Amino acid sequence: MKQAQGTLSIATPGQGLTEITGEVARWVEDQGVTTGSLTLYCQHTSASLVIQENADPAVRRDLETFFKRLVKEDESLYRHTAEGADDMPAHIRSALTPVSLTIPISDGRLALGAWQGIYLFEHRRASHTRHLVLHLSGE
Amino acid sequence: MKQAQGTLSIATPGQGLTEITGEVARWVEDQGVTTGSLTLYCQHTSASLVIQENADPAVRRDLETFFKRLVKEDESLYRHTAEGADDMPAHIRSALTPVSLTIPISDGRLALGAWQGIYLFEHRRASHTRHLVLHLSGE
Amino acid sequence: MKQAQGTLSIATPGQGLTEITGEVARWVEDQGVTTGSLTLYCQHTSASLVIQENADPAVRRDLETFFKRLVKEDESLYRHTAEGADDMPAHIRSALTPVSLTIPISDGRLALGAWQGIYLFEHRRASHTRHLVLHLSGE
Repeated sequence: MKQAQGTLSIATPGQGLTEITGEVARWVEDQGVTTGSLTLYCQHTSASLVIQENADPAVRRDLETFFKRLVKEDESLYRHTAEGADDMPAHIRSALTPVSLTIPISDGRLALGAWQGIYLFEHRRASHTRHLVLHLSGE
Repeated sequence: MKQAQGTLSIATPGQGLTEITGEVARWVEDQGVTTGSLTLYCQHTSASLVIQENADPAVRRDLETFFKRLVKEDESLYRHTAEGADDMPAHIRSALTPVSLTIPISDGRLALGAWQGIYLFEHRRASHTRHLVLHLSGE
Repeated sequence: MKQAQGTLSIATPGQGLTEITGEVARWVEDQGVTTGSLTLYCQHTSASLVIQENADPAVRRDLETFFKRLVKEDESLYRHTAEGADDMPAHIRSALTPVSLTIPISDGRLALGAWQGIYLFEHRRASHTRHLVLHLSGE
């Protein structure tokens, strides 16, 4: 068994889901591993990762709307408000969704289901550059 | 170190938790690994995985009820409604619970706590066959 | 590649976040692995793990408050009440946050982001001793 590590930097346009399946799949294919597992790790506390349906874009809109309703951007609810009304909600949304995902590699490819895409979930209103660490082990 | 990969297909009777601890444990024991780690991966966007108490069945009922209240099956809340009133809530519940779980293997067995069981969480009303990928590395 | 396994016991003072970054980092450094990945696994159904901001303590207070509001300690909502009004909410909060976290190791250290700390999230009112399993593979 061998292992490999890399990083991905993803520019986000503000709140919402940015699909990263292609970038992650290309990095995996470059490592030449047939069977193994990949860990994706998001180095932030106001952005996270999510596996979601990659067909109807309305699914992503509805998911974003749900999280906005569930975790309100209302400063009266929080004590940590110095970084803006969207900062504490961003931390909470990051706690409710994964910052770490481990996905098996089979036949040289990510073992995603037919309708699964990998998304970076930006929780801040402003655009950001987000950093992911990729760790693969296999053979 | 060596690795092994397998799949499990689980028939679910519709919404709720189906315990899969026994199936997963048997697969792990068949691999003959003493120390290692197992990744369980759910290849769906309307079903997920959860570790929960395996003693009182009322815990599972209360957990299911909580998720039904939190993520309502009310079409007026969503734009993605073509696949039924339960489809978009299923995607959201899948985002709030893991599709990927990594559990250490110690002394040849899953290092679960005394009260922990592994459950497949079906979020659609209809029965489905769900596919999991198991990836183990260890020695 | 080699692997190592260990355990950590953490005393919690009741509900809330207890930072464990230091304990986990020391264990990792003792293993002498340069590149690899660490899985942290919480063996409980009423405590979990979370990666959160380690700067402003108000972030932790606001996160705890959010979970108390989202999952109410109101016995009329649950059937599983024999172990106290805080037990079923603890199980639900454990389902909404991870019991398993995998973090890459780079240059001999946990690849955490600049503002990320690792926390044990105690969901019961009483103090407890919680058990974590650490599994590392790398070289």
